[in-house]
Amino acid sequence: MNVTIRIAESNDLPSIVRLLAADAITGQRELFSDPLLPSYYQAFEEIAQDKNNELIVAELDGAIIGTLQLTFIPNISQRGGKRALVEAVFVDAQCRGQGIGKMLMEWAMERARQRNCWMIQLTTNKKRPDAQRFYQSLGFVNSHEGMKRQLQPDEAA
Amino acid sequence: MNVTIRIAESNDLPSIVRLLAADAITGQRELFSDPLLPSYYQAFEEIAQDKNNELIVAELDGAIIGTLQLTFIPNISQRGGKRALVEAVFVDAQCRGQGIGKMLMEWAMERARQRNCWMIQLTTNKKRPDAQRFYQSLGFVNSHEGMKRQLQPDEAA
Repeated sequence: MNVTIRIAESNDLPSIVRLLAADAITGQRELFSDPLLPSYYQAFEEIAQDKNNELIVAELDGAIIGTLQLTFIPNISQRGGKRALVEAVFVDAQCRGQGIGKMLMEWAMERARQRNCWMIQLTTNKKRPDAQRFYQSLGFVNSHEGMKRQLQPDEAA
Repeated sequence: MNVTIRIAESNDLPSIVRLLAADAITGQRELFSDPLLPSYYQAFEEIAQDKNNELIVAELDGAIIGTLQLTFIPNISQRGGKRALVEAVFVDAQCRGQGIGKMLMEWAMERARQRNCWMIQLTTNKKRPDAQRFYQSLGFVNSHEGMKRQLQPDEAA
């Protein structure tokens, strides 16, 4: 299987949004339309221009079948050590069980090492027990609670 | 109580490292020395020069009694929405139970709203049940597992 893991280009964006929108748990947040909402392109540009953010894709025979985002974070803790954060890991439902997620995550871990990160971390929804086992198989430990709070800018208006 | 929440300046750094080093769970990772290790100053500079990272302190009568770090992250998900990540929340043991942590977190949430973040998130060590209740009192929900993997660049050498 000829899978390439690489940094996303702007013409990959529709395929990335399609992967996000297909997710059973968070897909309803997205809008996969033609053309895409301008906010998707704005976010892509902001990521592309930030040296501490990388949007990654897995490509098979010209088709985008997986994605994740990597963020490199400078910190004071751990004697000024850097961390890598992984967000938005998605693999095409038709391509699961073939090691695509593992290839994406191993690429991300290697990239994080190159960027001198001492730690890589993520949060995974408790409704995704399979994902949790997948990350455990890659050496991740459930040492923390992942806590989130939605902010409503409208409240402040 | 005359507490000020503000962005850290470089001469706050020794006090920040002192707070980190005093922590029972993660303090052993730090080295509070005079002068500080250069790596702490390098990390401070990197944070100060990155528009998507802010190191925050709580000051009482000229003393630094609390800190946290905020990272603003552009994302494709949520129609190109931004997230805020909170890391390294520490309050001086002698000042606990006085609402300092709440002031820091409310400042962080307001800042995240100003930066158009639709979500604020953090991970908290499962060994800190009090911290978990504290974040719940601020509206955070334990919807996710926080998973971490230490990277060892030495392995690749």
